[in-house]
Amino acid sequence: MSTHEKFMDEALKEAHKALAKDEVPIGAVVVCDGKIIARAHNLTETLNDPTAHAEMQAITVATNTFGGKYLNNCTLYVTLEPCPMCAAALNWAQLKALVYGASDPKRGYTLFEPTLLHPKCEVIKGINADKCGEIVSGFFKRKR
Amino acid sequence: MSTHEKFMDEALKEAHKALAKDEVPIGAVVVCDGKIIARAHNLTETLNDPTAHAEMQAITVATNTFGGKYLNNCTLYVTLEPCPMCAAALNWAQLKALVYGASDPKRGYTLFEPTLLHPKCEVIKGINADKCGEIVSGFFKRKR
Repeated sequence: MSTHEKFMDEALKEAHKALAKDEVPIGAVVVCDGKIIARAHNLTETLNDPTAHAEMQAITVATNTFGGKYLNNCTLYVTLEPCPMCAAALNWAQLKALVYGASDPKRGYTLFEPTLLHPKCEVIKGINADKCGEIVSGFFKRKR
Repeated sequence: MSTHEKFMDEALKEAHKALAKDEVPIGAVVVCDGKIIARAHNLTETLNDPTAHAEMQAITVATNTFGGKYLNNCTLYVTLEPCPMCAAALNWAQLKALVYGASDPKRGYTLFEPTLLHPKCEVIKGINADKCGEIVSGFFKRKR
């Protein structure tokens, strides 16, 4: 298992925590110097807050950990392609690298131009994409 | 003074609170049925959190007040044109109407297409634009 797959599995564990709360199952971890410094999952229903996406909370936890506003030495792993809000937030945080699992062709940030991410942010996609996508599609199938 | 100007003045009061904390001076209020239900100002430095924009906090406070995720009966007044993160957050919140003061030609959400706001969100701009813009430009001039 590659390092990216290992950390994406940790993000998936967070997605499963969201699922257990009947939240849209999306999870994220922030990695700095090979260590996880923040874990988070979607909590929009629990908190009644449409901004409480996994990535937003991961940013808040990670920046709190550092005591600084920037994540320019960090990689964020998230199970689903970030939405525009989260991509723009990762831009403000000057995130070094973004790794995501499944793409989101309906709500993903890549629908928007010019890019919402910081131009220096490295992007890797498709890590554990099947598992990351199936947990979300299964959730919505059961809701129908 | 029009209703829009009156509420924008309240958002400006929030911007002045940010200024007093040496934050980029941006303020916001959320109005529902003619009443202010949330007030917030930029706190990115104070909280060491790049997501702590006035609008994001206003959304969180307002949705907490309602105990629901949506602001589809609310108007947000903010002194500066929202950034992409905040516009996309207002989209998730299904905000009814956005009123902003000064435009932000460098970081404003209107640089992005397709629109980041919810298509049904009414937008009014330029309310008290001079005062709203001057507080920000004055802040950055003093920082140089």
